Amino acid sequence: MSTLSVIGITMGDPSGVGPEIICKALAEMPAAERSASAVIGNLRLLKRADAIVKSNLRFVESLAANNGAVPVVNVPTKDEEQIADGKLSAAGGEAAYRYVERAVQLSLEKQISVIVTAPLNKGAMHAAGHHFDGHTELLATLTNTKQSFMLLASEKLAAVHVTTHVSLKGATERGTIERIVATIRAGYEHYRSLGYDNPRIAVAGLNPHCGEGGIFGREEIERIDAAVAQAKQQGINVQGPISGDTVFYRALKGEFDLVVAQYHDQGHIPTKLVAFDETVNITLGLPIKRTSVDHGTAFDIAWQGKASHINMKAAIAYARMMADGRRSASAAAHAQA
Amino acid sequence: MSTLSVIGITMGDPSGVGPEIICKALAEMPAAERSASAVIGNLRLLKRADAIVKSNLRFVESLAANNGAVPVVNVPTKDEEQIADGKLSAAGGEAAYRYVERAVQLSLEKQISVIVTAPLNKGAMHAAGHHFDGHTELLATLTNTKQSFMLLASEKLAAVHVTTHVSLKGATERGTIERIVATIRAGYEHYRSLGYDNPRIAVAGLNPHCGEGGIFGREEIERIDAAVAQAKQQGINVQGPISGDTVFYRALKGEFDLVVAQYHDQGHIPTKLVAFDETVNITLGLPIKRTSVDHGTAFDIAWQGKASHINMKAAIAYARMMADGRRSASAAAHAQA
Repeated sequence: MSTLSVIGITMGDPSGVGPEIICKALAEMPAAERSASAVIGNLRLLKRADAIVKSNLRFVESLAANNGAVPVVNVPTKDEEQIADGKLSAAGGEAAYRYVERAVQLSLEKQISVIVTAPLNKGAMHAAGHHFDGHTELLATLTNTKQSFMLLASEKLAAVHVTTHVSLKGATERGTIERIVATIRAGYEHYRSLGYDNPRIAVAGLNPHCGEGGIFGREEIERIDAAVAQAKQQGINVQGPISGDTVFYRALKGEFDLVVAQYHDQGHIPTKLVAFDETVNITLGLPIKRTSVDHGTAFDIAWQGKASHINMKAAIAYARMMADGRRSASAAAHAQA
Repeated sequence: MSTLSVIGITMGDPSGVGPEIICKALAEMPAAERSASAVIGNLRLLKRADAIVKSNLRFVESLAANNGAVPVVNVPTKDEEQIADGKLSAAGGEAAYRYVERAVQLSLEKQISVIVTAPLNKGAMHAAGHHFDGHTELLATLTNTKQSFMLLASEKLAAVHVTTHVSLKGATERGTIERIVATIRAGYEHYRSLGYDNPRIAVAGLNPHCGEGGIFGREEIERIDAAVAQAKQQGINVQGPISGDTVFYRALKGEFDLVVAQYHDQGHIPTKLVAFDETVNITLGLPIKRTSVDHGTAFDIAWQGKASHINMKAAIAYARMMADGRRSASAAAHAQA
């Protein structure tokens, strides 16, 4: 049996691209990592996806496997006959919901160490009676969490967000001192857990030129300065506010490990520009660990074997790093090479 | 005499990096282009900068020259003895102001076709009694212009801005339908003047996911949709709104010639991230044509011969393209190669 921690990959909406991109990603993984990557979903549909993408996987119903076999937690799927390729359905939404629910249970029981989520469809989930905005809200509810933080990360650039799914005007109001400090702290703790002794964090300004002394907005003076000072007092190696149009460039050149973005697009534009396919979504602040692909169910191309699995591979690789630390992940990869 | 149009390069604050980066940039230029690039400034200081950076230029007092000599419009500099290397002074601010004033005069008289501005210092200009926010406001006043638009451009990515130097909250309010249409139109006309028959323009959304149907903000529904529709009716090849976190990636991949950004950082973050040193600032909407470096006077390193001239080279190259069109600029470069 592998010494690696077990990560759990939820299959997502069965009508979407989840099953096929999971099979493709698993097929390209070192055998030891593959056998410590349990898929939480529907075994029959996984086998069908495997045949379509010719990934030639062996599945075993278990939480962990050996010799490159893929462990599967086969969750009973209600109304399975109503699920069709590339079609939105309540049955598909219900199934996706159940896979996540089971993954959270396994995670809270410490049977798996990180969850990787394949895409679900909000409309399908609503049709099934589960009224959540998406995975993050669902996971927060299932784990009774008040506050979470979206981290977008690739090997090139990483940004954690003070605010995300709120209007731009709303974002200028929600960035309180407390929220900014909590965001810095969540980013700091994440990088510490990955094995960084002293993560280098930069905080972006909200306004052009950081408000230029208050002429173009006062949020830097009234909130961000104070938040950075508080985080420094907590012993965090943090700088800022630094103007949005230079801080990401400086991070890309290697000066910072992480940028704290004040709003959705400020963090999403640069991270996705430099690594569109490799940028992974990580939810911080939950009592469980979770990474996700940064795309949707893509019903229009689902079950045709042509969906790209690059982002899923990146999400699994990031989860492996969270599960076993930077050193273990790279050692495991080397052992297989 | 060259058949190229004459462009005018203002020397900027004489205490800053302007003189030396101009000399370095001119030295690396094909002879024919150099002799059609008049410096509007102080001949004595240009000769001194030339000696410091060893650019080995020949200067002639004229608007255009031959055989690689550099034409100079030698503007009288008041209180020249009060100007010191790397020091802010009213005399330096006054000189920088006079160079711009002379360049605008030459430009309105059609003696030069494009102005390239080296950096001036706002504080120095204020000390000299000229209370402008910067070059753009100064140029607008000197040309009696009500409305202008900032374009940031490199060969990789270009963004024209609906709003710039205003707080982020203010930016959410100032993006009226009229202003967005005018920005699209200014970008369209600029690319037409560069020789693009049918420039491909994309308009970024303001809110995350373009507001996701109004849940995360209604500016897309209430303003941006209508602005894009109006611009289309005017025959412009424009699409949008497209989410900020995908539109710049698509433009970078070659799908669009220009992105209309809704606010300062939305346009500045991606353009500077992919081409930090080569991104040029172009002012649209003036009755004259103008490009600029995208950095300041850098008093701390001025007159030491170590300032990078890469951005100045890019600003001059862009001005040459505006003066003589894409084809002429490239033909001129080839003729020299």
